[in-house]
Amino acid sequence: MHITPTQLTQLSHDILAAYGFTPEHQKSITHTLVTAQQDQCHSHGVWRLLGLIDTLKHGKISATATPTITQDVGSIVKIDAHMGSATTAFSVGLPRLIEKAQQNGIALLAINHCVHFSALWVEIEQLTQAGLIAINSTPSHAWVAPAGSTKPLLGTNPLGFGFPRINPQEPYVFDFATSATARGEIQLHHRHGTQMPEGLAIDAQGNPTTDPAAAMQGAMLTFGGHKGSAISTMVELLAGIAIGDMTSQESMAFADGTPTLPYGGEIIIAIDPKILLGDDWTAHQQRGEDFLNQFNASGARLPSQRRFKARAQNQQQGYIELDDNLYADLQNLLTLAN
Amino acid sequence: MHITPTQLTQLSHDILAAYGFTPEHQKSITHTLVTAQQDQCHSHGVWRLLGLIDTLKHGKISATATPTITQDVGSIVKIDAHMGSATTAFSVGLPRLIEKAQQNGIALLAINHCVHFSALWVEIEQLTQAGLIAINSTPSHAWVAPAGSTKPLLGTNPLGFGFPRINPQEPYVFDFATSATARGEIQLHHRHGTQMPEGLAIDAQGNPTTDPAAAMQGAMLTFGGHKGSAISTMVELLAGIAIGDMTSQESMAFADGTPTLPYGGEIIIAIDPKILLGDDWTAHQQRGEDFLNQFNASGARLPSQRRFKARAQNQQQGYIELDDNLYADLQNLLTLAN
Repeated sequence: MHITPTQLTQLSHDILAAYGFTPEHQKSITHTLVTAQQDQCHSHGVWRLLGLIDTLKHGKISATATPTITQDVGSIVKIDAHMGSATTAFSVGLPRLIEKAQQNGIALLAINHCVHFSALWVEIEQLTQAGLIAINSTPSHAWVAPAGSTKPLLGTNPLGFGFPRINPQEPYVFDFATSATARGEIQLHHRHGTQMPEGLAIDAQGNPTTDPAAAMQGAMLTFGGHKGSAISTMVELLAGIAIGDMTSQESMAFADGTPTLPYGGEIIIAIDPKILLGDDWTAHQQRGEDFLNQFNASGARLPSQRRFKARAQNQQQGYIELDDNLYADLQNLLTLAN
Repeated sequence: MHITPTQLTQLSHDILAAYGFTPEHQKSITHTLVTAQQDQCHSHGVWRLLGLIDTLKHGKISATATPTITQDVGSIVKIDAHMGSATTAFSVGLPRLIEKAQQNGIALLAINHCVHFSALWVEIEQLTQAGLIAINSTPSHAWVAPAGSTKPLLGTNPLGFGFPRINPQEPYVFDFATSATARGEIQLHHRHGTQMPEGLAIDAQGNPTTDPAAAMQGAMLTFGGHKGSAISTMVELLAGIAIGDMTSQESMAFADGTPTLPYGGEIIIAIDPKILLGDDWTAHQQRGEDFLNQFNASGARLPSQRRFKARAQNQQQGYIELDDNLYADLQNLLTLAN
């Protein structure tokens, strides 16, 4: 089916309001999910409302929490989400993060005690649009074994990065799980009774497996062997321990067997190239263009390129493609609440 | 042969002095190379003196440059190495980087116009010993094609990270090339007439190859497919463009066909967990220990573990193993200078 961004925004607002989410949460969550949907990034689109409401029913997210700034010193801002959505805490912290980066050249925003379910690139792009370079990351649930182990000590631990380009609508942006595949991919193979590609998971004995059932008993692997494993471990330390928040193991323990969203911290680092380079930034940003323009010219695709294309197309046509079943599920969610 | 750290330090000092390196350069270069040698990290040990002197002979490094601080504002320090060794510029910038991180919570040191040949972990460990979390990176020479391309747009682009542990001698540290293998590995296969493992390189037509000669005509691949490729591109943007310094392509053009060391910039970010967490850092650092201790217990090895073991052994025995031929080459280097 076709739905306009305005209609989809209204539907998301209505669902969240019906389940008691405050206007601030309605706004930040909806903005994030509709933005992802417009980019045809379905896995992080309005589909997430189902998991979100499920998490609420299990008492693992607060619909009414108001994020508070717990620290604002030097180049650091810390926000306590009080078990609310990370998206709302991010919108509270964003103006201070931008100010501090513009003042000191580099700044760090730490979000604590948040429920995380959104695409990292939605945040990254708000920073690149402010002319900043940005890095962000968050632990998740411990489904992933480090290289050499059979024990799931790591989350899917996504890592985001953005660099402002001259066209502010199309920055250099990547956002990917540091696991070899998404949890949902394995679940999909399980549901369809298909085998997975090699190299994604191990069984409970630590042997490579392409059987989704065995993989779900065992563990997922990280991307890139021991190097990807080291990066995923960095995420646990940087976006978990260093900001006094949960590791993916602890988040999983907190979920206590319920199929709820990850709970814990997030870290966002912003760098202002205009502080690093002054007026020379303009010339160096152009060098960045010359460098990046060689990618497409030589057959490589830049990360997010497909998203930007989908966004441009959706904006031009004025509507978003939405799966009929998903729309029915969302309508159903609304009916059940009322 | 066996050589004591004192003897090896003296030999390195003598060689560098004989070729006109200033006492500051002798000290920082020697410290870096002997530290790597003590950890049996041969690829970044005193062997590098050969490439360094070769680079000097080609006029692509300055033996007498004095690094200058070009910016010291907010959380940013910039050092111009004036074509000298990165190690010397790092020692000039290190105290300010530590002060700024301790004051503002996060700080960034950018080194410009430096020749880079040293292990990133040597710098990382100086920051973890000061109780800081650290990330560093530098572009290199463009030998590596991004995923989907046959054109070498990327360097081997190493990435380093460190997190202080309760035993300051054994922090969590990784330092690896974002290429699938080291350039030297391919050269070694070429010299020995052996085939390389799969997945490391492509030929000039972009087809996967295990033939080292074909690989050297084509390009190396990044680790981890399109994700590793995205991270390597980040290094070019962050440690090249954003600090107004060369990309790996530009460094290669600067070498102008000579087999000289990469020239350009380096970025080092330091975070003080005591600013993030105050007195609670002690308890959270212990949580970090509990998390990391599970790695060995479940069969995984932590990065740098082999190095720490070698270091402890070398410190206990009081000498370092050095290849006879390498020692002869170093003595020869000294003789030729005088």
